[in-house]
Amino acid sequence: MSALPLTGLLLNDSARAAGVAAYQLAKELWPLPRSITGAGLRATLKRLQAQLPGLRIGRVPSGAKVLDWIVPDEWEIRDAYLEGPDGERFCEFKHHNLHVVGYSEAVDRHYSLDELQAYLHSLPEQPDAIPYVTSYYQRRFGFCLSHRQREALRPGNYRALIDARHVPGELNYGELLIVGESQQEILLSTYVCHPSMANNELSGPCLLAQLATWLASAPRRLSYRLLFVPEMIGSIAYLHEHVRELKAKVIAGFNLSCVGDERAWSYLPSRAGNTLADRVALHVLKQSVGSFTHYHWRDRGSDESNYCAPGIDLPVASVMRSKYGSYPEYHTSLDALEGVVTAQGLAQSFAVYRQMLECLEANCRPQTLVLGEPQLGRRGLYPSLSMKGSTDAVRQLLDFISYADGSMDLIEIAEQLGVLASTLVGMLEKLQSHGIMR
Amino acid sequence: MSALPLTGLLLNDSARAAGVAAYQLAKELWPLPRSITGAGLRATLKRLQAQLPGLRIGRVPSGAKVLDWIVPDEWEIRDAYLEGPDGERFCEFKHHNLHVVGYSEAVDRHYSLDELQAYLHSLPEQPDAIPYVTSYYQRRFGFCLSHRQREALRPGNYRALIDARHVPGELNYGELLIVGESQQEILLSTYVCHPSMANNELSGPCLLAQLATWLASAPRRLSYRLLFVPEMIGSIAYLHEHVRELKAKVIAGFNLSCVGDERAWSYLPSRAGNTLADRVALHVLKQSVGSFTHYHWRDRGSDESNYCAPGIDLPVASVMRSKYGSYPEYHTSLDALEGVVTAQGLAQSFAVYRQMLECLEANCRPQTLVLGEPQLGRRGLYPSLSMKGSTDAVRQLLDFISYADGSMDLIEIAEQLGVLASTLVGMLEKLQSHGIMR
Amino acid sequence: MSALPLTGLLLNDSARAAGVAAYQLAKELWPLPRSITGAGLRATLKRLQAQLPGLRIGRVPSGAKVLDWIVPDEWEIRDAYLEGPDGERFCEFKHHNLHVVGYSEAVDRHYSLDELQAYLHSLPEQPDAIPYVTSYYQRRFGFCLSHRQREALRPGNYRALIDARHVPGELNYGELLIVGESQQEILLSTYVCHPSMANNELSGPCLLAQLATWLASAPRRLSYRLLFVPEMIGSIAYLHEHVRELKAKVIAGFNLSCVGDERAWSYLPSRAGNTLADRVALHVLKQSVGSFTHYHWRDRGSDESNYCAPGIDLPVASVMRSKYGSYPEYHTSLDALEGVVTAQGLAQSFAVYRQMLECLEANCRPQTLVLGEPQLGRRGLYPSLSMKGSTDAVRQLLDFISYADGSMDLIEIAEQLGVLASTLVGMLEKLQSHGIMR
Repeated sequence: MSALPLTGLLLNDSARAAGVAAYQLAKELWPLPRSITGAGLRATLKRLQAQLPGLRIGRVPSGAKVLDWIVPDEWEIRDAYLEGPDGERFCEFKHHNLHVVGYSEAVDRHYSLDELQAYLHSLPEQPDAIPYVTSYYQRRFGFCLSHRQREALRPGNYRALIDARHVPGELNYGELLIVGESQQEILLSTYVCHPSMANNELSGPCLLAQLATWLASAPRRLSYRLLFVPEMIGSIAYLHEHVRELKAKVIAGFNLSCVGDERAWSYLPSRAGNTLADRVALHVLKQSVGSFTHYHWRDRGSDESNYCAPGIDLPVASVMRSKYGSYPEYHTSLDALEGVVTAQGLAQSFAVYRQMLECLEANCRPQTLVLGEPQLGRRGLYPSLSMKGSTDAVRQLLDFISYADGSMDLIEIAEQLGVLASTLVGMLEKLQSHGIMR
Repeated sequence: MSALPLTGLLLNDSARAAGVAAYQLAKELWPLPRSITGAGLRATLKRLQAQLPGLRIGRVPSGAKVLDWIVPDEWEIRDAYLEGPDGERFCEFKHHNLHVVGYSEAVDRHYSLDELQAYLHSLPEQPDAIPYVTSYYQRRFGFCLSHRQREALRPGNYRALIDARHVPGELNYGELLIVGESQQEILLSTYVCHPSMANNELSGPCLLAQLATWLASAPRRLSYRLLFVPEMIGSIAYLHEHVRELKAKVIAGFNLSCVGDERAWSYLPSRAGNTLADRVALHVLKQSVGSFTHYHWRDRGSDESNYCAPGIDLPVASVMRSKYGSYPEYHTSLDALEGVVTAQGLAQSFAVYRQMLECLEANCRPQTLVLGEPQLGRRGLYPSLSMKGSTDAVRQLLDFISYADGSMDLIEIAEQLGVLASTLVGMLEKLQSHGIMR
Repeated sequence: MSALPLTGLLLNDSARAAGVAAYQLAKELWPLPRSITGAGLRATLKRLQAQLPGLRIGRVPSGAKVLDWIVPDEWEIRDAYLEGPDGERFCEFKHHNLHVVGYSEAVDRHYSLDELQAYLHSLPEQPDAIPYVTSYYQRRFGFCLSHRQREALRPGNYRALIDARHVPGELNYGELLIVGESQQEILLSTYVCHPSMANNELSGPCLLAQLATWLASAPRRLSYRLLFVPEMIGSIAYLHEHVRELKAKVIAGFNLSCVGDERAWSYLPSRAGNTLADRVALHVLKQSVGSFTHYHWRDRGSDESNYCAPGIDLPVASVMRSKYGSYPEYHTSLDALEGVVTAQGLAQSFAVYRQMLECLEANCRPQTLVLGEPQLGRRGLYPSLSMKGSTDAVRQLLDFISYADGSMDLIEIAEQLGVLASTLVGMLEKLQSHGIMR
């Protein structure tokens, strides 16, 4: 990663602390062998539960029909490696859990190098990267290694060992409800099935854990539903149980993914494209970040595919840093904590998500109560001396009053004024206290 | 005509054959002395009837009031020429039927050259072209000739002879109904009143004849109403009889005009501008042709003026090659079969119209039946091995499923996917067979 | 003021005469010491009444609550000046009524130069300009002078004298109703509280007086409500009395301000932005003026703040020359009749406002009565001889007929045709007389 571009976002101490805490959590979670089911996933959820006591760990049994899908058996893996002609071991699962194709079945056989090639995966264009490969829904096995290592293999006899099995068990997810004054909910979803990769996808759950702590730190107007799910099958399973409730309550939602590096800001719209989630995301990105990549719905690739699917239609958008698929380290061992994800990047993402949530908390439909421009002067809100150029300071106040006709919400008014919606709260309260606005 | 620009349109054998057949038909129809009524028009319709047995030749008596118009008497012309001081004949109707002003009354008189000038028409800017001049609704006579020939005339005594008369008779048009499963109709109208000119307007009826043959070659979902009318008065007369039926049945229509050269693609919208006809025309022009001139409703000049008039409001647009009025040969003897219209140009137009009709046949409002993204993998529609970059092939399938929420028709979905709507039929049927879509 | 840019606006004699008359009126009104109340305001209204006999002078007592405001006491001023160490007088109100802060309270005290500075106002960036300063709603006093003069003051003893008082009295405004056939009204409002400044704001009332004379010179379809009010408090007071009536009757309105120079054309939209007032303003500016500055609602600064406020929502826009706040002389003594405002500038503004009112008078929703394109030829409205290029002259007529489907008003149709709506009246009447349109 070369030079980091500057953003217009100013971080306060608590955002910086959240970035450091998220990074620290990512380091702890790094070695756990996550997949869409199994012990590594459960260990990850347990660690999150230690930090977020209210987190409920949901269970869906293997074989369950969830919407159009069937929950697969659990995958247990104890060990895996290749042994070369001279007895040297490599592709050891203990060294890097990307070395084994996810959900590989057990094997302990000998192959010639030629035979072995059918079970090896590498990336010629990225010769130092171990690729991330899975085969959840068809039984096979395989090893992943750097292309450089693969090309150095000499002819001879190889032993392929994977000590794994598929057993009926359950699919797990984490759910944290933070109840506010209103039944209206914000959905924040992230995924926890990826093994040792950093931007995609330890950054998502580690950031969401910090947001959870912040959300729980003060009473909220809105309610929040935070989900830590295995990607695709997890959101499908959760929707299977909760789709009616979500459709009734969720006014905006975000899929948190790829939020840890500093190289870019990305916006992926909901399928509808103009929901409250889209509006607040674009609002904060414009006001606080400035420059970002505006992706198309066709560029999606995560749980929004389910949240926004026809008939489900939840208002879920994504604000990301370098989007999955767009950066070279994506889905390889190069997507490492060191060099890709930073505490600073996580802190900036925290700040942007916090601003989005603050804008949603502040959002309302203000309405001016007086007819005609109010006489601000007799309330001490207008300079008593009128002279060329002297009234610029109250311009924003008058514009706010003028736009507050009950047809626009606070985010729309803030867009007109060119400021962040959450910064208008003080002005709104002042006008309310003077009886000018409700 | 100089170099032919390439188009993105690939022609198959049947399109090429249609182009050749249309061109051959144009050669046969070339010498017939067409006008808005009379023997030449009838002979043209008879020739079309020979190819299209279902073609009905409609008759409206002279003097009939049709909407705001009155059907004029028939025009019969047997001979016409000018005879010069030395007895040489020129401007002979037998040599080129543009030499006589259309609907000229009879004359057999002698004039000095100066007197004669009042009855001559030529184009100083195009000195080799015989202009096309008509006077349908006011009695006069006149001769048309190249400006070069006109300037070479020597003073002397000239005889002007036109052996013509106006007699009560009838206005004729051709109507071909091709009935499909649905009462919903596509209107395809072209005009057959122009004498020997090629792009405007033998190309229109000759292309429409080939489209008729193709439409009749297989069962269709939609019904088709094909009209061969004298321009303006013919569509007025037809509307007079059928306006209520057309308004009830026609879901899209096109006025076929200037479809024979290879120099340009042109789109002229309906008056409303956003009808199904406009959408499918723009869709095919964008997906298959790429570069085309987007005209304004104000640039119209043919029967769409009637089809789209206030209170009639049929969804009729035009897809043309070089539009009337936009190319130098327009409305002169230079608009010849050789050098302007080509079998290739007609074949390309055939292909584009066929694509528009195929898209209309395929058009529907698909609806995804499963909640959430379907599990394509267990249906063999998704690669079982997930690795960086490996899912691009099923992207289109997932996008199709995602857009099919019942709010967009197939053409709109195809626009989102950047493909021709008719190419989605196979995918739609596959999804239907798996119960994923209806 | 340097070179005057040309405009596409052609002035006729009556517009030129109106410009001269408006300029002459401005010279007469120049010396009157206007404020938001008081003798100078009344004298101004009386002078306008002399020219416009129907003008009613309205009265609202001091202390009255009008909407959110309270009418202030009247301000009476007889004399004011500063006297320097050597007894020389300067800042004399008699010499320029900008020398005293508007609504200053009485004073007769001696100050050292240092003490005096707190009561002086000048503009360092415009050292030759006397600034315009007011303090309507908080009691204070002050003197305004050029920065050059202020810097030349020597230390010593100064006498500050203002012979003024604030007494209960009344707020005055002028109202002129010109009743036409219809109850629908056009609101034309301008303000009369500014002392000796020319573009902002003698140009407004002087132009409105000429428009009043022109409007009264012939019977009108629409009714007109012309207001001459002190800015802000005047429109508030008028709205307090008439808001229900205005909301019921006014279909379009304009705030006439800064209409006297020749350097620019400016458009300030209503709050809604798409009212009939906005549409006719943009129509005339596009068709007749061509180049103009399109301001935003946020750039407003006059009575439209009240007319368009939430809950009042009158359709009031502004067409100006150099907008208040945008030109260097604004709100200083440099905004003089000589050098800023010209009879030519006023004449051009008169012409543009007259065109807007003519378009509003002409505006209707024409509807073509025949089905299909009318046969214009048999009505002598179409050339009987059809030849390449010969029909351009009737193109506009056919387009008019084609757009007149009852869904667009005359201004919208004129926009499509690229002409001024008022110029279509003759064509409309011709088509009506032929029974083609109503």
